[in-house]
Amino acid sequence: MTKKLVFGHANPDTDAIVAAMAYSYLLNQTGQETEAVALGTPNEETQFALRHFDATAPRVITAAKPEVNSVILVDHNEAQQSVSDVAEVEISAIVDHHKFNLTTATPLNIRAEALGATSSILLKMFNENKVEIPANLAGLMLSAIISDTLLLKSPTTTEFDKIAVQTLAEIADVDYETYGLEMLKAGTNLATKSELDLIEGDAKSFEMGGKQVRIGQVNTVDIDEVFERQVALEEAMQAEINQNGYDLFLFVVTNILTSDSELLVVGAPVAPIEKAFGGKLDNDRLALPGVVSRKKQVVPPLTAAF
Amino acid sequence: MTKKLVFGHANPDTDAIVAAMAYSYLLNQTGQETEAVALGTPNEETQFALRHFDATAPRVITAAKPEVNSVILVDHNEAQQSVSDVAEVEISAIVDHHKFNLTTATPLNIRAEALGATSSILLKMFNENKVEIPANLAGLMLSAIISDTLLLKSPTTTEFDKIAVQTLAEIADVDYETYGLEMLKAGTNLATKSELDLIEGDAKSFEMGGKQVRIGQVNTVDIDEVFERQVALEEAMQAEINQNGYDLFLFVVTNILTSDSELLVVGAPVAPIEKAFGGKLDNDRLALPGVVSRKKQVVPPLTAAF
Repeated sequence: MTKKLVFGHANPDTDAIVAAMAYSYLLNQTGQETEAVALGTPNEETQFALRHFDATAPRVITAAKPEVNSVILVDHNEAQQSVSDVAEVEISAIVDHHKFNLTTATPLNIRAEALGATSSILLKMFNENKVEIPANLAGLMLSAIISDTLLLKSPTTTEFDKIAVQTLAEIADVDYETYGLEMLKAGTNLATKSELDLIEGDAKSFEMGGKQVRIGQVNTVDIDEVFERQVALEEAMQAEINQNGYDLFLFVVTNILTSDSELLVVGAPVAPIEKAFGGKLDNDRLALPGVVSRKKQVVPPLTAAF
Repeated sequence: MTKKLVFGHANPDTDAIVAAMAYSYLLNQTGQETEAVALGTPNEETQFALRHFDATAPRVITAAKPEVNSVILVDHNEAQQSVSDVAEVEISAIVDHHKFNLTTATPLNIRAEALGATSSILLKMFNENKVEIPANLAGLMLSAIISDTLLLKSPTTTEFDKIAVQTLAEIADVDYETYGLEMLKAGTNLATKSELDLIEGDAKSFEMGGKQVRIGQVNTVDIDEVFERQVALEEAMQAEINQNGYDLFLFVVTNILTSDSELLVVGAPVAPIEKAFGGKLDNDRLALPGVVSRKKQVVPPLTAAF
């Protein structure tokens, strides 16, 4: 049996890093040979979680083909969010909770559910395979679900995510509300970050109606603090557009305490954006009250409008 | 809760019909409201199985949107093999054992495994959900696995398919080898069929390197009997090309007793076909020794060659 690499999406968030670690652990416990890797270094929130549960970040890779013939994707399925040479290797399995945009050459194993985090699906798979979750891995999976659901407040949150958080918090032996808020705040330390880090840190690319749309997002406890840097942020977004040929760059600034967002937009066309969210851009900005989920509240209305 | 329709691919084979019936039954047993339907009438093999296990064929639909907002796909995932208006409804779940070519607007449930039949995956799901399979449904699921794996002889056959066949044969209380050969032979009664029925009965469309490729397949116990009608078959294939804008029509004639096939080709380009199978077309024909599986032995080498 040959080794397979397991990894989450580029610009990894906590669920992308942790789901790779968790699924690799589960597969290895059931007789396969896999290694969890990552398509980037952990962000500050993920680093906080890794430190707290005494774990090491997965090795970063930039290509798969030099090492393996077969890969396993977690927390993503779209080629443009994956490793650069994903088209040259076999995708043998996918575990994911996103919408699908996938073409494969051969049949494969897929486990997808519309849950709040890939780590929630993995908890089910541990249970189905009757594999025990070590306490520190449970803590990381807990962190991933808290991260993706903003402490169970995002509209992507399902009943099972709530059960999963309680189950994993018990195994990890932490108070998830106290720990969760600490972890989310650790990810909102934006003052020390460059404008490029802010807009690109969690950015993903989407094709919408033939346009290349880049969407970044940051969580904060103070939206005004971010928009004090609006001019420099827009310059950075324009530079990314020029360099990568995007048509549009959207930057979603989310207040994790109030569960509201504000959108900053550079590029064209803006009409589908105004149509999607039912408002007019003012100074390139648009308030998105009650919006916290890119996946559920930003991408679907945009895709429909384009 | 609103009703969802569950259906297999157009030009349904036994697994497409049965997997819809089985998954709908499982979902209804676990509290959902679904109806199994079909995108065409059952072929003679499927009719034999339905008669043998005293079951009724699912109702045929031509569009989903007039009835429901949400559909569940089994035994296929590609839009071009699905209901005509699949783009206008939500795909809420998929159970499939084919390669993927799927784009959705929202997250969904997917269960895919590289097993010999979708009905084998469904047996796992019945077990996981601890739902008992009625004897006649077990007989139909057995028929579907025998059909897709040509009595466990196709290279798509996995160890689990063998276990599944034994498990289901026990529940259905049949000798699967005797029954299976009878059922397969019932599907090879080709003499009474028109050329159009032969080439189109199980045909699927694929996009390969920008070309529209239509691939039909029949099972027989006498390949020569089929090729006695070669001139009329080629006329029918050319008519389908003209009418539907295909670039190529491939017709795979498979001997279920010897597990060999012979290919008949109309359209262009033929170079990728000769490259894929390492031979020269002679009188539009090419022997494919040992080839029985369109999914595993025809589509992948063709896709690679195009």
